[in-house]
Amino acid sequence: MLGPVFKFGGTSLGSVERIEHVANLCLKLKPSAVVVSAMSGETNRLVAMANEISTKNDVPEYDMLVASGEQVSVSLLSLALRKRGIEPAPMLAPTAGILTDSQFSKASILKVKGDAIQAAIAKGHLPIIAGFQGVTEDGRLTSLGRGGSDTSAVAIAAGIGAKECIIYTDVDGVFTTDPRICPDARIIRSIHYEEMLEMASQGSKVLHIRSVQLAAKWGIRLVVRNSFSNDEGTEMSTKDTPIEGEVVSGVAATQNEAWIQAGATKNPQFHLASVFSELAEKKINVDIITQSYEDAGTKINFTVAENDAPLAIETLKTRFPQSPLSFRNDVAKISIVGVGMRTHAGVAARMFQVLAAQNIEILLVTTSEIKVGCLIPREKLKQAVQVLHKEFLSLRL
Amino acid sequence: MLGPVFKFGGTSLGSVERIEHVANLCLKLKPSAVVVSAMSGETNRLVAMANEISTKNDVPEYDMLVASGEQVSVSLLSLALRKRGIEPAPMLAPTAGILTDSQFSKASILKVKGDAIQAAIAKGHLPIIAGFQGVTEDGRLTSLGRGGSDTSAVAIAAGIGAKECIIYTDVDGVFTTDPRICPDARIIRSIHYEEMLEMASQGSKVLHIRSVQLAAKWGIRLVVRNSFSNDEGTEMSTKDTPIEGEVVSGVAATQNEAWIQAGATKNPQFHLASVFSELAEKKINVDIITQSYEDAGTKINFTVAENDAPLAIETLKTRFPQSPLSFRNDVAKISIVGVGMRTHAGVAARMFQVLAAQNIEILLVTTSEIKVGCLIPREKLKQAVQVLHKEFLSLRL
Repeated sequence: MLGPVFKFGGTSLGSVERIEHVANLCLKLKPSAVVVSAMSGETNRLVAMANEISTKNDVPEYDMLVASGEQVSVSLLSLALRKRGIEPAPMLAPTAGILTDSQFSKASILKVKGDAIQAAIAKGHLPIIAGFQGVTEDGRLTSLGRGGSDTSAVAIAAGIGAKECIIYTDVDGVFTTDPRICPDARIIRSIHYEEMLEMASQGSKVLHIRSVQLAAKWGIRLVVRNSFSNDEGTEMSTKDTPIEGEVVSGVAATQNEAWIQAGATKNPQFHLASVFSELAEKKINVDIITQSYEDAGTKINFTVAENDAPLAIETLKTRFPQSPLSFRNDVAKISIVGVGMRTHAGVAARMFQVLAAQNIEILLVTTSEIKVGCLIPREKLKQAVQVLHKEFLSLRL
Repeated sequence: MLGPVFKFGGTSLGSVERIEHVANLCLKLKPSAVVVSAMSGETNRLVAMANEISTKNDVPEYDMLVASGEQVSVSLLSLALRKRGIEPAPMLAPTAGILTDSQFSKASILKVKGDAIQAAIAKGHLPIIAGFQGVTEDGRLTSLGRGGSDTSAVAIAAGIGAKECIIYTDVDGVFTTDPRICPDARIIRSIHYEEMLEMASQGSKVLHIRSVQLAAKWGIRLVVRNSFSNDEGTEMSTKDTPIEGEVVSGVAATQNEAWIQAGATKNPQFHLASVFSELAEKKINVDIITQSYEDAGTKINFTVAENDAPLAIETLKTRFPQSPLSFRNDVAKISIVGVGMRTHAGVAARMFQVLAAQNIEILLVTTSEIKVGCLIPREKLKQAVQVLHKEFLSLRL
């Protein structure tokens, strides 16, 4: 059976010394193929130069530019492996057969033709493959957008028939909550794919979200591990509620939220569709949405990223000059996530009680099958994370 | 008819500001295609990282690494052109069809398949092509070795049927001698290809020597011009002696020479073949060679680069322990170059007279059809350049 595909992120490859360390790991752990990001800081350096000239990034030359960062990592790691007696097969996207659509700067992988990679493995070589990049059918380089190397790694694992993909990064794994906010935070050893999706989109930025979706879809065992420690890391799985009673797997927090309340108004043009298509046109992402009907008319509450708030407000003022509008940007979102919630009633109620006991006001609520999220005043966020972590995640001895 | 191919060197592309300047030049002068080097300093940065890991450079990953520098230049110049309303066709070696052998780090161009470049031109796009790189038949990136972008540009001009190739650099052209040594030095407006080869190999490092050979072979008009000034530059031509009486076109000087004298000895193993095959095995390049037979036996004089001298001496001591050996490394070579010499007798004699009149000792002499070179004490080099420049190159009013 084919061994795992390893993926090393930018911090793991951030210097020549670290690249030598990664080469040692490969020598010891014998992956079947290795996918690499650009050295940390490199993509930022390239993008900064591009932006000095033009902020246009949906053009082939932008993708050609940023793809050069991974090319450097592939080359340097290959040199380090050859020095250790491993014959590397350095590969960029065209050789590795990573086909994408032609949405420059945010391309999607259509297919990984695994034959060149498999042929190299069959010869006893170690394929070292540029992440983050792809190639269009007519031979132009593309890039997958930030964090895309995780997705490359999972797609390559699927393309060559590997069952496991290990993402090496600079943290020990996925934590039950942000350790900077809550000292009790601990590593989740096994997390359900869907929980991971909720955790990722809620601000736990360990893995690129598309890679998690793809791993689930293709049945790849996905592991996050620290390249600088011996911790076993976090494994994504499809098993519901691994440990009896652990209903909640993690507490996710996002700080930079703004809350906007539009209406109430009886203007017939003011409704969910009209409001959010206006915002979508301005490319403003909306998170929580609630709607209510009051005597005064329709009222819509929603949250956006704090730096999008001024544009959102201006947009609504222009489109609906007569409608009342209020907002606050000193808010934060806290969520509890866990596949166990599906079968455990009352988890949401317990969350509300814990927050109420601390006098933490809940401004908005959003729920999914495996998540309950609350918008709260930002100054209470740290306190909320700690009490919810204690309630749902303190280790039972 | 197809317009000229432009080539911009690293200093011409050394910052975002300079790239914008190059884009303006292209907008104004309308080349049919543009070939670029890496931004100045970039190749050195990449090679330094590689050398920290391994000094092995005849491997695919080394070429993949250094090729990334040109990829960045292609991308940034393309962005700057698009901003100006020119549709760029950014191309790396595989797309541009620059086929080489697989001698990694010093590959030779076998062929430029011009069809992709021509197709882009036919659509009204401006091909921006990575210099210095090529691709093997089996799709691996190669690099041509230092200065190879000049060669790329000429080969591309030939491959697409352009008649002219303009090399933009940071000097106004080829000078009659080094202006730092001789204030009277002036730009040669038209220089014969063969003179250029002699000038180039003698230390006038304006153009990569292979590019000059290829331009001569393929009949491409080659021009060197400064991207930062409006000077018309230097044109290479096949016309002998452009101006009546200008027998000598330039004075070339090389400082870092060492002179080695081996023998005399009657050892039958000591002869030109045995001495220079020993040195060739150690990869020591030899420049001037003379041989004489004296009563004491065979004597061989030769010059090498100063930093190769210790190895050359050690090699000869080991191989011919009985043979006398002497050397001095405080020497320099001065040459006068000109196609006019072919038909003008007495040029060498005039050179010797001028040096003798200044009491400059001539240690060795080397001649070709269009060159006379003398090895002289290094401390006399500046004086020698000035008097020879005055003798052969002062402007006649």
